[in-house]
Amino acid sequence: MTEQVVRRRVVQHGISDSRYNDAKSQSQYQPYKDAAWGFINHWYPAVFSKELVEVEGDSDEDLVPSVKGIQIAGVPIALRRVNGKVFAVKDQCVHRGIRLSEKPMCFNKETITCWYHGFTFNLDDGKLSTIVANPDDKLIGTTGITTYPVEEVAGMVFVFVREDDFPLEDVPPLSDDLPFRFPENNERFPHPLWPDTPSILDKDAVAHGMHRTGFGNWRIACENGFDNAHILVHKDNSIVHVNDWVLPLGILPVTDDCIQVVEDETGPKGMMQWLFTEKWAPVLENKELGLKIDNLKGRFYRTSVVLPGVLMVENWPEEHVVQYEWYVPITDDTHEYWEVLVKICPTEEDRKKYKYRFDRVYKELCLHGFNDCDLYAREAMQHFYADGTGWDNEQLVSTDISPVTWRKLASRHNRGIAKPGKGVYGAVKTHSTRFKDTADGKRPAYFVDQVWF
Amino acid sequence: MTEQVVRRRVVQHGISDSRYNDAKSQSQYQPYKDAAWGFINHWYPAVFSKELVEVEGDSDEDLVPSVKGIQIAGVPIALRRVNGKVFAVKDQCVHRGIRLSEKPMCFNKETITCWYHGFTFNLDDGKLSTIVANPDDKLIGTTGITTYPVEEVAGMVFVFVREDDFPLEDVPPLSDDLPFRFPENNERFPHPLWPDTPSILDKDAVAHGMHRTGFGNWRIACENGFDNAHILVHKDNSIVHVNDWVLPLGILPVTDDCIQVVEDETGPKGMMQWLFTEKWAPVLENKELGLKIDNLKGRFYRTSVVLPGVLMVENWPEEHVVQYEWYVPITDDTHEYWEVLVKICPTEEDRKKYKYRFDRVYKELCLHGFNDCDLYAREAMQHFYADGTGWDNEQLVSTDISPVTWRKLASRHNRGIAKPGKGVYGAVKTHSTRFKDTADGKRPAYFVDQVWF
Amino acid sequence: MTEQVVRRRVVQHGISDSRYNDAKSQSQYQPYKDAAWGFINHWYPAVFSKELVEVEGDSDEDLVPSVKGIQIAGVPIALRRVNGKVFAVKDQCVHRGIRLSEKPMCFNKETITCWYHGFTFNLDDGKLSTIVANPDDKLIGTTGITTYPVEEVAGMVFVFVREDDFPLEDVPPLSDDLPFRFPENNERFPHPLWPDTPSILDKDAVAHGMHRTGFGNWRIACENGFDNAHILVHKDNSIVHVNDWVLPLGILPVTDDCIQVVEDETGPKGMMQWLFTEKWAPVLENKELGLKIDNLKGRFYRTSVVLPGVLMVENWPEEHVVQYEWYVPITDDTHEYWEVLVKICPTEEDRKKYKYRFDRVYKELCLHGFNDCDLYAREAMQHFYADGTGWDNEQLVSTDISPVTWRKLASRHNRGIAKPGKGVYGAVKTHSTRFKDTADGKRPAYFVDQVWF
Repeated sequence: MTEQVVRRRVVQHGISDSRYNDAKSQSQYQPYKDAAWGFINHWYPAVFSKELVEVEGDSDEDLVPSVKGIQIAGVPIALRRVNGKVFAVKDQCVHRGIRLSEKPMCFNKETITCWYHGFTFNLDDGKLSTIVANPDDKLIGTTGITTYPVEEVAGMVFVFVREDDFPLEDVPPLSDDLPFRFPENNERFPHPLWPDTPSILDKDAVAHGMHRTGFGNWRIACENGFDNAHILVHKDNSIVHVNDWVLPLGILPVTDDCIQVVEDETGPKGMMQWLFTEKWAPVLENKELGLKIDNLKGRFYRTSVVLPGVLMVENWPEEHVVQYEWYVPITDDTHEYWEVLVKICPTEEDRKKYKYRFDRVYKELCLHGFNDCDLYAREAMQHFYADGTGWDNEQLVSTDISPVTWRKLASRHNRGIAKPGKGVYGAVKTHSTRFKDTADGKRPAYFVDQVWF
Repeated sequence: MTEQVVRRRVVQHGISDSRYNDAKSQSQYQPYKDAAWGFINHWYPAVFSKELVEVEGDSDEDLVPSVKGIQIAGVPIALRRVNGKVFAVKDQCVHRGIRLSEKPMCFNKETITCWYHGFTFNLDDGKLSTIVANPDDKLIGTTGITTYPVEEVAGMVFVFVREDDFPLEDVPPLSDDLPFRFPENNERFPHPLWPDTPSILDKDAVAHGMHRTGFGNWRIACENGFDNAHILVHKDNSIVHVNDWVLPLGILPVTDDCIQVVEDETGPKGMMQWLFTEKWAPVLENKELGLKIDNLKGRFYRTSVVLPGVLMVENWPEEHVVQYEWYVPITDDTHEYWEVLVKICPTEEDRKKYKYRFDRVYKELCLHGFNDCDLYAREAMQHFYADGTGWDNEQLVSTDISPVTWRKLASRHNRGIAKPGKGVYGAVKTHSTRFKDTADGKRPAYFVDQVWF
Repeated sequence: MTEQVVRRRVVQHGISDSRYNDAKSQSQYQPYKDAAWGFINHWYPAVFSKELVEVEGDSDEDLVPSVKGIQIAGVPIALRRVNGKVFAVKDQCVHRGIRLSEKPMCFNKETITCWYHGFTFNLDDGKLSTIVANPDDKLIGTTGITTYPVEEVAGMVFVFVREDDFPLEDVPPLSDDLPFRFPENNERFPHPLWPDTPSILDKDAVAHGMHRTGFGNWRIACENGFDNAHILVHKDNSIVHVNDWVLPLGILPVTDDCIQVVEDETGPKGMMQWLFTEKWAPVLENKELGLKIDNLKGRFYRTSVVLPGVLMVENWPEEHVVQYEWYVPITDDTHEYWEVLVKICPTEEDRKKYKYRFDRVYKELCLHGFNDCDLYAREAMQHFYADGTGWDNEQLVSTDISPVTWRKLASRHNRGIAKPGKGVYGAVKTHSTRFKDTADGKRPAYFVDQVWF
C-alpha cells in the first residue's frame, strides 16, 4: 500500500472514552484481574454429603469408597469420611505425586495410603506416618501433606482451601465466607417485600441442588450470577412463563447507594444489591427499538455476593426459598458450577414436600432451564477473556456497576490469589495427545476418575 | 561418547545447495512466511447465498435465522440478510465479547442485538445505537463494531475482510480479488485449445460447489492448488479413468516465460501458468524407475492464481466449465476450503442440465474424489510446516517455480498481513480441556454453532 | 491480611531434608532430567515381524503394503521389507516433509517414493535417486534422507535410531542395547534359584508379546518397571491368586551391593538387582498398620535394566521364561510400551505349547491384568512430572535406590539426548483443533495411519 493510504487510516469504532471501566477504575481491581486461578485461603463447597458415603472396608472393590478427589483453585484435595467426620488432605503423594484418591486405599480409620508405594498419611495432621513396605525409612515423620479444615452443614461438605503455609489458627469460621444471614441483618438489609431468607447454617435448613463443570474462567461465571442487565437471556425460560411473570427489559441503578458494600472487620465481605427497591428502576421501554413492557408482573428478589464468590438470590424461585451459587475455580479455564436451593423444613412432611417440588419443578425449570442459559452465556465469553483481551478491551456501561463494585471489593478483601497449579491437572495444557483422563472421550473436570482393577 | 567419535561426525544428507529455494529466493518472500493467519484487506467468499436464507422474525426459534457467524483470518464476522441484502459486521460484542451470531437476536431490519445484554448495533455503520435495558447510557453512539463490505454474485456471498482502520473508500472492487476474466484477456492470455473461461461475474453465471474446513495452514493448501508436480496423487482417481484419460508423469517448465506474473496498477494481482502450451513439456518417461507413458490422452487445462489466494482452473473438469478454489484462513492452522464450478447457463434448461451433472458427476468424482486427494496431501504437510521447520528446511526443485513465484508476488502485493487473532477462537490453543465448542466432540471450525433454548 | 498474620506463616510440611534424592544426588543425574524426548543413538524395537508382512506390488491398494511408519524419540521412521530384509529410513520427504509411510508408494525393490511429488529415495543409502516427474532435476543425488540400521531377531524388528550425523561405522551391535545374557554371565550374576534366562538372541528363542501407546513420559514408565517398592499395586492381580502366591509387603535393600552397576567398555550398560537373594529382605510386617504376611509364597525373580531403557525380569512369569519391556519414547509425553515374553522352543511342539500358554494365560493375566496396573500407575504420575514439578519436588526413600542408581548410570552412559522433535507429530502441541490424525477421535500415537483412496 502507498504511504499516503497508510496515513489516511482511521479507526471507525475504537474503545470509547465513555466506557464505565476507565483506566482509573481498572487500576482498582488489578488483583482481581490476576486471580485467574481463583482466590485461596477461603471456604468452598467440595461435595454434597451424599456424594461421600461412608462404608466399611475402603479397599474393597465391591463397595463405593468414602474417598473422593477434587481440585479447587489448582489444589488437588482428597476427602475421606470416617465415623461420619470428613477429613481433607492434599491429594498428591509426597513421593511421586500420585493422586491418593485415584485408587483409594485405607488400612485404618486414622490414615489414607497411596495405592502405588504405600506412603501412609495421618488424616488429622497429614504427617507421613509410615510406608507400607518400608516402615523404618528415615523420611517417615519428617514430611507430609497439607490438611484442610472441613465443615459439613445442610448436606454440604465445605473445605477451607489454604496455602501450605496458611496457619490453621488463622482459619476464619465458615460463616465468614457465606452470604449475609437473616434475621441478624434485618435492620441492615430491610426487605419489606418478602420473608427472611434462610441460610444453610440455620436449624432445619435443607439444601437441594447440583454441581457441574463449566468450561470457562470462574470470574466471568461469577459476574453473570449477580448481573442485573441480562434479563434478556431469560425472557423465554419456562419458569417465567409457567408463572405468567412479565419481566422488565432490565433494571437500572437510580441512586448512589443502590449497592451496599460490606467490609466489616469480621464476617463476610461482599455487597448487597437493593434490587426491587426504589434504588433500582425497572426499564419498561426502549423507544429506539419500539419495545414496551405492559403489566409488569415479576418475582421480587434481591441478590448479593460475598467472597470468595458466593451468590445469594433471596426469595427465589419462590418465597421462603433462597438460591445460592458458587463458581469454584478448578483451573484458570474450568470451574465447578454449584446451584443450591435452601429452605427451612422443620418436619419430615416439610422435607418431603420440598424435595418433591425440587425434583419435579425447580431442578428442571430453574437449575437447568433458567440457569442453563446463564451457563451458556458464561462459556460464550471465554474466548474473549481467555487471552486477556476481554479484561482490557471490554466496554462496560452504568449497569455494570455491579461487576465493577465486586471486582474492587474482591481485590481489597480476598485472603490470597491462587498461584497457577503446579504438577496438577491443568498445569500443562499442551499435550501430544489427550491424556488418559480424556482419552476415553470424557472431559477431565472436577472429580478424579476412580479405577478398580 | 569420546571426543574422538564426536570429531568424526558428519551429516550424510544435509540441505542441498542445489535446492531451488536458496537464501536469496527465500529473502524475497519473507512477508509470505509471516502470513500464517492470512492476508487481510481482501475479498473472501463467506457463504453460499443458500446458506443465508432470509426469514421473518429472526428471534423466532422456530425459524432458521438469516444470521450466520464465521471467522476469516482471525476476524469473527456476523452476516445478516435483510430485504435480500447481506450485511457483515464484526461478530464480537463491544461489551463482553460475545459472538452475536451464536444466538441471533434482531428486533428490526436495521440492527443486530447481542443476545446477552442487548447491545444493539446498526448493520450499516456498526454504531452502538442502543442497549435494550439501558437506552440512555452514555456509551451509546460513542462506539460500535467494524462493518465489512459485501458483494453477492452467482449465489456466493463475498466479504471484504478489513482491518478496523482500513478506510472504506479504499476498498477495491471484488473483481480485483478474482481470477483474470475472458474474453477481456483473450489477447493477453490466448488459449487456442479451448473456449473462453466463464467468470462468476458473468451474466447467467451459475456456481455450484461446496466448502469445508481443512486442518492445516491456508498457504500449504493454496500452494497445492496450482502445483504442477503432484499429478501422481491423482493417477488413480475415478474422474481420470471414467474419461479414459492418460496422464503424464508430470509437466516441466521449458521456457522462462512459462509463468506470467500480473502486477497491473489495478485489477487482480497474480500469475498465469501457460500449462498445455509449448512452454511446459509433459514428462512421459522416468528411465530410473522404468516408467513410460504411451498414448497420452489428457484434459487440456490451465491454472492461474491471484491474491488473496484464488485458484482458477480453466476448462476443467470439462469445456465451458471452470473450477475456482479458495483457501480461506480461519486461524493459523485451519482454513475453509472452497471448491466452486462455474458455467454460463442462459436458460432454465441449461441450469437444470448443469445442476444435474454437478450433482451426479462432478460433486462426487471431482470435488470429492479428485480434490479429496489434494485435501489429504495438504493436511499431511501440516506437521512439517506448523513449527516453522518446513518453511526453512524444505528443499524445492525446478517444478516448484510455481509456488516460489506465487510467494514472491504475494509478498509484494498483499494489502496487509493478518495479525494473530485476539480474543477469538484459535487465539488461545492451550486448554485445560476442550471448550464447549469441542466438548461435544464436534470440531470447532468455520461456522459458529447456533444454540436455541 | 495484616502483616502480622503474614509474619506468622510457616509451612507445616515442606520438602524433607531426609529425602533420598538430595541436591548432590540430583546433580548426578541432570542429563537424565534433560532426556524428556528419550536417548538417541540406541537400538529400539520398532515392530513385530508379523506387523511388516511382505507382499508384491506395494502400490496395489488391495494388498497390505510392507511399509509402516513409526516415530521414536521424535524421529519419524519408515520401514519397508524387501525380499525379507527390512530397511529403515527417515519418514519425512526432503521436499515438503510428507511422511512417506502415510500412503506407501514403491516402484521397485530398491527405493521408496513419496506419494505426493514422486521424490524417490534409495532404501540402502537414503539418497534422492530420482523424482518421478522431474528426472533431470539438479537436486537429484545431492540430498537424501537418513537411513537407520536394522536387526531382526526372534520375530522382532529393531532399529538403531541415530542422529543424522552419527557415523554408521560407530553403530554398536544390537546386543549392546539388550539385557545381560546367560550363560555368559552365570559367574557374574549367579542365581541358584532358577535356570538360565533365555535371550531373544538365542537360537530357537521365541518372543510373544504386544505393544501399545502409554500416555506419559517414557522415564516415569521405565522407572516403574524395575521399581521394587510397588508390590502393593499388584496384590489383587489374578496371576498372583491363581498361583496362590503370597507376596511380601515389599522388599528392602540390606547390603550396599544389592544393585550391581555394569559399565564395561563394551556390551550393555545397566544394572542388575539381586532380588530374592540375601541382599534384599522381604518386608513381612508393618506394625504401624497392623499388617503381617504369613507363609510367604512367592515367585522368585530378578530384574535388571540396561540402556536405552530395557527391562529384564528373569524367571517370570514362570521358570524358563523371561519378560522384556521397552518404553520407547515417541514424544516427551507419549511412549510405546512393549511387553515381550521369551522362551526357547527347539521343536514345533514346544512352539505350539508356548503359544497356547501365552494366548490363554500370559497375555490376559500378565501382560494385561498384571502390567495394566503398572501402565495405569505410570500414567497417573504424568501430571506431577509433566511440568517439571515432580523431578524437583519428589521425595524419594531408601527403596528408591533403584531409580536413582538407574538415573545416574543412564546419565553417564547414554549415547545422546534426543532433541525435541522438529516438524513432526508432537513438535507443536497447541492446535486450534485436533488435527486430522485425531479429528476422527483416534488418538495419534505410534503408527502412522495409512490412507488409500
